[in-house]
Amino acid sequence: MNATTARPRVVILGCGFGGIEALRGLSRADVEITIVDRTNHHLFQPLLYQVATAGLTAPAISAPIRHVLRSQMKRGNLTVLQAQVTGIDTAGRQVLLDDGQQLPYDHLIVATGATHSYFGHDAWSAYAPGLKTLADAFTIRSRVIGAFEHAERLADAAARAPWMTFVVIGAGPTGVEMAGTMIEIAHHTLPQEFRRIDSRRTNVILLEGSPRVLGAFVPQLSERARAQLDRLGVDVRTGCMVTGIDADGVDYREGDGGPTRRIASKTVIWAAGVAASPLGRAIAAGTGITLDRAGRVPVEPDLGVAGHPEISVIGDLAAARSYGRGEPRPVPGVSPGAKQMGRAAAANLLRRLAGQPTRPFRYRDYGNLATVGRKAAVVDLPVPGIGAVRFWGFAAWLFWLFAHIYFLIGFRNRLIVMLDWAVAYWTYERSARVVAEPPPTQGEP
Amino acid sequence: MNATTARPRVVILGCGFGGIEALRGLSRADVEITIVDRTNHHLFQPLLYQVATAGLTAPAISAPIRHVLRSQMKRGNLTVLQAQVTGIDTAGRQVLLDDGQQLPYDHLIVATGATHSYFGHDAWSAYAPGLKTLADAFTIRSRVIGAFEHAERLADAAARAPWMTFVVIGAGPTGVEMAGTMIEIAHHTLPQEFRRIDSRRTNVILLEGSPRVLGAFVPQLSERARAQLDRLGVDVRTGCMVTGIDADGVDYREGDGGPTRRIASKTVIWAAGVAASPLGRAIAAGTGITLDRAGRVPVEPDLGVAGHPEISVIGDLAAARSYGRGEPRPVPGVSPGAKQMGRAAAANLLRRLAGQPTRPFRYRDYGNLATVGRKAAVVDLPVPGIGAVRFWGFAAWLFWLFAHIYFLIGFRNRLIVMLDWAVAYWTYERSARVVAEPPPTQGEP
Repeated sequence: MNATTARPRVVILGCGFGGIEALRGLSRADVEITIVDRTNHHLFQPLLYQVATAGLTAPAISAPIRHVLRSQMKRGNLTVLQAQVTGIDTAGRQVLLDDGQQLPYDHLIVATGATHSYFGHDAWSAYAPGLKTLADAFTIRSRVIGAFEHAERLADAAARAPWMTFVVIGAGPTGVEMAGTMIEIAHHTLPQEFRRIDSRRTNVILLEGSPRVLGAFVPQLSERARAQLDRLGVDVRTGCMVTGIDADGVDYREGDGGPTRRIASKTVIWAAGVAASPLGRAIAAGTGITLDRAGRVPVEPDLGVAGHPEISVIGDLAAARSYGRGEPRPVPGVSPGAKQMGRAAAANLLRRLAGQPTRPFRYRDYGNLATVGRKAAVVDLPVPGIGAVRFWGFAAWLFWLFAHIYFLIGFRNRLIVMLDWAVAYWTYERSARVVAEPPPTQGEP
Repeated sequence: MNATTARPRVVILGCGFGGIEALRGLSRADVEITIVDRTNHHLFQPLLYQVATAGLTAPAISAPIRHVLRSQMKRGNLTVLQAQVTGIDTAGRQVLLDDGQQLPYDHLIVATGATHSYFGHDAWSAYAPGLKTLADAFTIRSRVIGAFEHAERLADAAARAPWMTFVVIGAGPTGVEMAGTMIEIAHHTLPQEFRRIDSRRTNVILLEGSPRVLGAFVPQLSERARAQLDRLGVDVRTGCMVTGIDADGVDYREGDGGPTRRIASKTVIWAAGVAASPLGRAIAAGTGITLDRAGRVPVEPDLGVAGHPEISVIGDLAAARSYGRGEPRPVPGVSPGAKQMGRAAAANLLRRLAGQPTRPFRYRDYGNLATVGRKAAVVDLPVPGIGAVRFWGFAAWLFWLFAHIYFLIGFRNRLIVMLDWAVAYWTYERSARVVAEPPPTQGEP
């Protein structure tokens, strides 16, 4: 009895946390699944900054999609395609690929996430790369390591200063992690390796537009994180709006109407803005939905698109709300949110196939944590009925460490990451400091 | 007593096996050393094919030069520069760098190795990348993995064939290792991971101009290697001269005056020709030396350049001879040769500084080994006075494995490589199958 042609066709776009969980939720369903991603790997994005700062190798935090999904593959109802999606024909119910192929669907789950946003200043991207993909991480690694190499070549000490000044824009978790790690590399990994420069005289400047770092955390934990950044030697400047970035540095304004200042720097990293995947516009064009300011697709309580229950949008591309007790609340753009939406979208799809009503999505907040360099982190764990448990410092760092290793996909990856971190912890050496190509001249991409 | 300015200035070009050993040989000398490399890492080239075939990560077989040389760094007489050498002013005794800097030297050791040679057909390089650097390995990895992904996207089975046909040109150790590993990936790693294609139907064709594979080995071991390649399923074609390579395949002639044939293939790898580093020409221009046909610099018995004893040339850039018992014999272009020349050049430099006569270089042949896919290798160990011990198969493979791990620089690297290989051995899974960028369309670089 071959029922292949009669099976409902489910297409999933994106193999991030949301897409993979949606697929897992459909693992036993009698459906024909196609999953599409631009790359060949699933990426554990929370540790991407470690690849950018040479602490981990790329394969330690990523795995081939085909390998991750191999057990589903054996069921014979899954096709994995590495392709770029160029559009969605919502009326004709098909996805358009860059090679001209069309993928017809009965159900579509869109989980293509977010990318950097330079707030309309796309020219900045050449001078201040962001951190979303492995290619981004390699670019940043090459620029950071290359900057020290360049400085060592310069005979004139004054000319070295912009090469030994690093600016991180945006003090969310990624910006804080990057700044904390970069100052540690300068102060602990590199000092004895250069002859002409003293890497301990490196400046790492963290610029943030809002009044505090880690704005998504409670003020108490922001203060703790800031104190730790100060102790590490990071120059934290809050309330600073970036007004320009070029090949030689960054311009910013201090506060509203404050003075404009300039930092001469050859290495700038963008950790400030996030914009939803451009596929949001394709969905909006086909369905008449209005995107929110960040380009996200507003979804119904069951994560479907209004008027198009056959399309679900999940993860960072969705402007979703959590329907628990009390008023619906926005779901934060974090990986547990994407995973939970993936599971919920799959469950609702199964309910619709069974002729049952769908259920509203409810986000379970398991807490919020961020690391601040070596040996320090902040942790905020909600405790239902009581409030929250908050802690910081070394205990929080250990908690962060084990949580991240636990959630890493694949036993081997966990082992490699633990080994790399154990070595790094005792020796300060970073295992992945090799750069495949001589770095291009900074600011002249 | 600061005698820095009075110390002899030694400049070493290249941080491969030769350059690093030369530096180690000078570690206790009262000299001022500058070592220059185009990249930031020392590379364990014998395992580079494992990075290209996704078995190992790049940092597992490479280490930052500054880290490798950190103990010398502490002595305070070493400068490491990541720079491109653009010329050598042999009359003025200075090295020219790409940023316009000049490095004056009293003694120069040139160890910049070799690169690919396309025998005058440089246009082939776009379609058939060679394997000398990490960047090369990433290019090949991306093309090989991308070819299977591309084939999976094609609905037309006939159109898939060129994407599932891989051609390796040149059956030296690198070509044999690449072909053997690629067929294993196709037959053992990937089969259950694709829906539309059967990766076991992949063709790997190994083209060799001479009558046998592994021409540097004795015929008996060539035959063993060929038998193993046949067993693996590699299509070995000896006596075949490549006459053309383009975006869609390879043309070759069978034997002298034989028929011309065509292989339709989207993925071609060049493992055939080697040419000495272009710095050979700079030395020839300044010293009047005539390079040999491969572009190598003929050196005196003590590895110095005739008329310029202050310049030594070592490794793959040198056309050196070994002065043992009997007639002087050419030194083969293998890593033990480069290492031994590095040590000898350093020792002769120390002798010259001490006013002693230099000694002729003597190459010690510790044997020759090559692996042929999983669980098989060929080993040829000379035994002085007796002849040679030759063996093959699993025992040879174990010997190869431990020899390579033993010589890998850095304890952590050895551990990671052993772990990766243990996992790969039992599961056939390859740990580094991630590709940072979607691969460019093959043949349209």
